[in-house]
Amino acid sequence: MTFPRYTPLAASLPATVPFVGPETQERARGMPFRARIGANENVFGPSPRAIDAMRAAMDAIWMYGDPENHDLRRALAEFHGVSPDHVTVGEGIDGLLGYLVRLLIGPGDAVVTSDGAYPTFNFHVAGYGGVLHKVPYRDDREDPQALLDMAAQTGAKLVYLANPDNPMGSWHSGAVIRDLLDHLPEGCLLVLDEAYAECAPAGTALSVAADDPRVIRMRTFSKAYGMAGARVGYALAAPELAAAFNKVRNHFAMNRAAQAGALAALADQDWLAHVLGEIAAARDRIAAIATENGLRPLPSATNFVTIDCGGGAELAKALVGEFAAMGIFIRMPFAAPQNRCIRVSCGRAPDLDALAEALPKALAAARG
Amino acid sequence: MTFPRYTPLAASLPATVPFVGPETQERARGMPFRARIGANENVFGPSPRAIDAMRAAMDAIWMYGDPENHDLRRALAEFHGVSPDHVTVGEGIDGLLGYLVRLLIGPGDAVVTSDGAYPTFNFHVAGYGGVLHKVPYRDDREDPQALLDMAAQTGAKLVYLANPDNPMGSWHSGAVIRDLLDHLPEGCLLVLDEAYAECAPAGTALSVAADDPRVIRMRTFSKAYGMAGARVGYALAAPELAAAFNKVRNHFAMNRAAQAGALAALADQDWLAHVLGEIAAARDRIAAIATENGLRPLPSATNFVTIDCGGGAELAKALVGEFAAMGIFIRMPFAAPQNRCIRVSCGRAPDLDALAEALPKALAAARG
Repeated sequence: MTFPRYTPLAASLPATVPFVGPETQERARGMPFRARIGANENVFGPSPRAIDAMRAAMDAIWMYGDPENHDLRRALAEFHGVSPDHVTVGEGIDGLLGYLVRLLIGPGDAVVTSDGAYPTFNFHVAGYGGVLHKVPYRDDREDPQALLDMAAQTGAKLVYLANPDNPMGSWHSGAVIRDLLDHLPEGCLLVLDEAYAECAPAGTALSVAADDPRVIRMRTFSKAYGMAGARVGYALAAPELAAAFNKVRNHFAMNRAAQAGALAALADQDWLAHVLGEIAAARDRIAAIATENGLRPLPSATNFVTIDCGGGAELAKALVGEFAAMGIFIRMPFAAPQNRCIRVSCGRAPDLDALAEALPKALAAARG
Repeated sequence: MTFPRYTPLAASLPATVPFVGPETQERARGMPFRARIGANENVFGPSPRAIDAMRAAMDAIWMYGDPENHDLRRALAEFHGVSPDHVTVGEGIDGLLGYLVRLLIGPGDAVVTSDGAYPTFNFHVAGYGGVLHKVPYRDDREDPQALLDMAAQTGAKLVYLANPDNPMGSWHSGAVIRDLLDHLPEGCLLVLDEAYAECAPAGTALSVAADDPRVIRMRTFSKAYGMAGARVGYALAAPELAAAFNKVRNHFAMNRAAQAGALAALADQDWLAHVLGEIAAARDRIAAIATENGLRPLPSATNFVTIDCGGGAELAKALVGEFAAMGIFIRMPFAAPQNRCIRVSCGRAPDLDALAEALPKALAAARG
């Protein structure tokens, strides 16, 4: 008898990790990166009021956070024009995706996503024994019709779509998503990952009735709000689905200071507007640096730019390695044929100066 | 067809919550408690160095925390005289218990615990479809022999034991736990919850070879280290079991500031010793207050005191209500026959002054 007696599912799971963190690479190379522009973090940071709120909350860190996330849910509800029972809060979108998959997906259940889309969602689906059906990107964007066709074909319980998309940076209008929703096969739930929605043009976020049971929308304080290290995500859904999370979630999982920080960050929309300006400028500069070096930046509605390097996966992989050797952390989290690309997160001027200086050298080395 | 299509297990789960937080009661009564001594939090708080470290970490809160928890795991390993591959870190013991249950327990699998023991463990077991077999306390303590007998009888995959115990405050020597371990039925894993171990007399924590595959020990920064709101727990286990958590855990779930705070808290053992003195003094005072009022305090190796009120559940429940009406938050998280007790967490002098003032009135009102 093997011991401990894992479930057959747990025993079958690989010890894979969705993402290797930059710290792991830093330990391997024996020094920190000088530019950390690979994990789509927001180097412009959270509202100073959020930082103040989190620092002030340390006096009360001996107390558990409110397991109902009452104040934050109420503020989010007001912000989105819904009621608090439409909102559930969790340990980042990663945590919420895990709970959602747990609620819906058991061994053999069909799930549809795009090939190359967010791997942590796939990690959860595999972790609960679901069967992933992947459709290719079309023109380097997610393909709503292909997702719909595959959902119908497989009887999928769940379809994942990120809008804007990571890792491509592409986006569809909210109207396109609405049309997808209207054509979902019966019994299929759309999990719409809007992690980057704040960075996108007006009209990108889905506009839908708060009680619409066909979709759950994931949002986060990790991207535009600049609080990735705090771990605060939330979902907007019909009340019945939002309440179902209470059956399985870790009720006391939220960091008390992070709850206070998210509340303060949400209240400071001026800071958010400021950061979105910085992000837009950084995107433009990354695109210009790529173009100057003969590469093709893809349009982005996110806080990163995906760059088509015009070669194959080998060139892109070599570039990531060359950048790392020069102290610059970027990633290439793509499936073929998008793995001809690299992904560069928005950075401050010094980060992008380093990028501009390194890219010609990295290209020469990777090609040579 | 019901929609969304939950798994049969998820559909069957009740919408119960392991614990209602004090904030929920505060909202219901329209004002905060003046003494929060009901959730076994540590009002003496974390090391000032931990607070400083968490405040300093806010400058980098735009970055995700290290998903490997490398530095914290290394420090914990050194502290416990094991290697880092014996340590896994998670979102409190609650989070780690959830991952452990997920790894081992599927529908119908037998799990053994004590009737009245930690409800969040039971929440996870039910949440994964396990079948809980509960044995009664014996002389108001957990009963190792009854746990062993029930494990053998049911073919349990997992036995839960908290030492010291919550909610009783009682404890067994590490030698007793070691003896239990040596008599575990084949194929049964002991999950030893040592959340309160730092508060207990020397010799209470289990001493066992680091590679012993029969037990996993849970520890936390929420109790003696005073960081409940930060959400940092860890488990000590054989490397194979510790690594299995990587298959299912939320790799990016840890708050970056909390990682830094735990590291600083661990390094400040002088503060821990100071707090343990405060806890011991508060325990003595709670016991004296109980005795002065004709009640019987139970011996405690934790940061709370369980008080036998000498009546039935009705009296204990009425007392909790009377205390709440006077602005004092305590709990009675017991199963019969221990539900004749109330549980009071250690507090500062003003908290215990309030307790001393309120208890005679609460008793008179509850009895009258």
